[in-house]
Amino acid sequence: MAEVHETPHHSDDVQQHLREVQAALARHKVVEELVHRQEMPKHELVENLVHKQHLAELATRLDKLHPADIAYILEALPLDERLEVWDLVKAERDGEILLEVSDAVRESLIETMDQAELVAAAEQLDADELADLAPDLPKQVMEDVYLGLDAEAREQLRAAMSYPEDSVGALMDFDMVTVREDVSLEAVLRYLRRFDELPDHTDLLFVIDRKERLRGVLPVGRLLINDPDVVVSDIMLTEHLTLEPGDSADEAAMAFERYDLVSAPVVDSHHRLLGRLTVASVLDFVRESSEAELLGQAGLKEEEDIFAPIVDSVKNRWRWLAINLVTAFIASRVIGAFEGSIQKLVALAALMPIVAGIGGNSGNQTITMIVRAIAMGQVAAEHGKRLFRKEIGVALFNGIVWGGLLGLAAILLYRDIKLGMVLTAAMTLNLLLAAFMGVAIPMTLMRFGKDPAVGSSVLITAVTDSGGFLIFLGLATLILL
Amino acid sequence: MAEVHETPHHSDDVQQHLREVQAALARHKVVEELVHRQEMPKHELVENLVHKQHLAELATRLDKLHPADIAYILEALPLDERLEVWDLVKAERDGEILLEVSDAVRESLIETMDQAELVAAAEQLDADELADLAPDLPKQVMEDVYLGLDAEAREQLRAAMSYPEDSVGALMDFDMVTVREDVSLEAVLRYLRRFDELPDHTDLLFVIDRKERLRGVLPVGRLLINDPDVVVSDIMLTEHLTLEPGDSADEAAMAFERYDLVSAPVVDSHHRLLGRLTVASVLDFVRESSEAELLGQAGLKEEEDIFAPIVDSVKNRWRWLAINLVTAFIASRVIGAFEGSIQKLVALAALMPIVAGIGGNSGNQTITMIVRAIAMGQVAAEHGKRLFRKEIGVALFNGIVWGGLLGLAAILLYRDIKLGMVLTAAMTLNLLLAAFMGVAIPMTLMRFGKDPAVGSSVLITAVTDSGGFLIFLGLATLILL
Repeated sequence: MAEVHETPHHSDDVQQHLREVQAALARHKVVEELVHRQEMPKHELVENLVHKQHLAELATRLDKLHPADIAYILEALPLDERLEVWDLVKAERDGEILLEVSDAVRESLIETMDQAELVAAAEQLDADELADLAPDLPKQVMEDVYLGLDAEAREQLRAAMSYPEDSVGALMDFDMVTVREDVSLEAVLRYLRRFDELPDHTDLLFVIDRKERLRGVLPVGRLLINDPDVVVSDIMLTEHLTLEPGDSADEAAMAFERYDLVSAPVVDSHHRLLGRLTVASVLDFVRESSEAELLGQAGLKEEEDIFAPIVDSVKNRWRWLAINLVTAFIASRVIGAFEGSIQKLVALAALMPIVAGIGGNSGNQTITMIVRAIAMGQVAAEHGKRLFRKEIGVALFNGIVWGGLLGLAAILLYRDIKLGMVLTAAMTLNLLLAAFMGVAIPMTLMRFGKDPAVGSSVLITAVTDSGGFLIFLGLATLILL
Repeated sequence: MAEVHETPHHSDDVQQHLREVQAALARHKVVEELVHRQEMPKHELVENLVHKQHLAELATRLDKLHPADIAYILEALPLDERLEVWDLVKAERDGEILLEVSDAVRESLIETMDQAELVAAAEQLDADELADLAPDLPKQVMEDVYLGLDAEAREQLRAAMSYPEDSVGALMDFDMVTVREDVSLEAVLRYLRRFDELPDHTDLLFVIDRKERLRGVLPVGRLLINDPDVVVSDIMLTEHLTLEPGDSADEAAMAFERYDLVSAPVVDSHHRLLGRLTVASVLDFVRESSEAELLGQAGLKEEEDIFAPIVDSVKNRWRWLAINLVTAFIASRVIGAFEGSIQKLVALAALMPIVAGIGGNSGNQTITMIVRAIAMGQVAAEHGKRLFRKEIGVALFNGIVWGGLLGLAAILLYRDIKLGMVLTAAMTLNLLLAAFMGVAIPMTLMRFGKDPAVGSSVLITAVTDSGGFLIFLGLATLILL
């Protein structure tokens, strides 16, 4: 995409843009309030003009901004102001901006657009961009857009939409420069001069044969440092990372990080060049998946529009709360089973949350570390025994030190040596349980080919809560009563 | 860096490398065991040869791998095997590999190297790479290396080490191509042909004047599509993201994402060109900071070498456990204050963890969402009121629905309508407390210029635990007893 927009000179500038837009909106609002509240019919005309002038100024300002910056501003504005700004954005820029905003904000914008506006916005986009937007567009809109595409774009769109979300196919684009291997660099340079612009991130030219099969890649750097007489095949690289559309985006991203790539070719099973993956898509993917993981850990299904209506927030969060309610209820029934013991020794009620809580924290540490290591590909099934040994060692140490300390505190508080000893023993046992499950849960999920990041934390907390209460109250009942 | 190494054809290949290295180590181990256990002196010589041959094969294989792949293999191997492989790596590659491994693994490797080996390894590196490694090297080693540098490299090293860890200065490198604005593209092309290779990620040539001040940037794409007669100043861009070394790396990374950049110039306050930031460093930074955040949420200070000795793990984790012990102890004392009430109505003991637990979960959802939004720059101080209103709405809804459900369950279980009503009321109040603190804690930390991601989760859980017990047991004492 040609960037004719004002790219900020400095990374703070986008904050500056936001403040300016907010100030312009505020001015506009003051005028509007004057018109509406004070009802000055005489001045109405004048103020209406002032008002229109403010909006026109704002529109001009927005025209100059990069689509990503407008997206940023839209995300940072509450719904009413967001829609006001959205109305001021030129229709032909709607598509590129919709691509940049977060899912939740995109939804709020699409809701306000009619069929014709959406079709017009979508028609501005490339096939791979369209594929990203497609799930959020009404079906009728996509059908209209599809009919307007040429055969190649239809094929690309169909291909891009057919790959699962976390695959290379879903992230690749089709913008690239291809050359033949038997031509001189001189010819390549002449060929490039016929372009109006090169696709973004063109650090490689792709060398293909007549059947579109990838023969190698020609780094632009090599094109520049070599003599124009040299032939492409003499300096092209044949050993270079080549992806297939079905490859996992996560592994591709790690390869980009490891080898510091800017772009990589994507080929089909016959080694025909389909498209390419660029570091820009990889960077977006890495950011988005780590965001999703952070949100997922707190049980948020997706990034929330912080200005979303209450009902949207409730929908985004209810699943996790429901699951936790069930696990909390189970833990509560475990306690319920020992009500007799608690009645006899009420100190148990005060001490039991400590056993459960510390177990949960420690288990979460273990599981987080192992889930991370699995994600980085550092854990193999045969490491299980070694990991168990280590975590159990850590748990024993912590149980004796922290559990001992707490036991001492309990003895001092309740003047009951046996109670303190039971507390220490229960804490150690619950830490051992946490360590064991902290290794076993992700390793088992991995063995069954499931993503260990999903739900690990709920599971471990459920185990250490109910387990902690059971161990502590059970031991106390056996030994103290 | 010239990549003469075998870059994998496919992103899975590195896993393949790892398996091969592990197989080679296993073969080697079998031979070793034969030699040691069965004590066959006759064959010893033969087996020693076989053994040496295995190691030589492995060394040859390692030679061909990309340093990042060797780093990956080292991280995935338990300590003893890791050191065995490390011994086989050619000394002149030690530096680049040390750069690639995680901090914890780096430490384990450096511990086994002597002064001379470390100096030799460090001398292979560029100034910016050396700056990354410096904190992990013994002081004496750094002094030796420093003495071996030329004046320019010393200056660069000093500069790179003087910037805080999360600044652009700490991430930038000094590898770049500069040109003058009054020359033709023909001249630029001739100049570039004199290079043996261009620095990685050279998508921009930097246009500087005689005083080294940055005048603009010339995208390589523009160099390629324009006529050789054109003069640099006619086609260079003067509006382009320009960073300063003191800029926050986080904001720079977001700018790279927004504008899909590959590299950006770094200038001093006089606009003199100091270096550049590349997307490779940005990608590493984004991955590392999201890792750190994920680990931090579970209270792990840093990425742990999963094969680390127990004592290292204990050190990495104890702080968080200590803090949680204190908060759990406080919650326990809150319960302790109501022991009389619990003794009278022991159902309270079984129900109270539900109130505290759901409050904690809900509070963590709120705080995670707001911390994310603050990190993305979407929250301004003046949004506070609006956010409070929304979160309190969500909490009220959840309190009435989920709290009502639980209240019903309590009524059925304990045949006590008043108890159920107290439970519902306590849950709603604790959810309101969680919502209020979930907004207030990060907004307050933000207002005081602190990073809201640090410690938010501990704080909210502490509040909802003690608060939940206090509210539920307090209400019960007032109403039921």
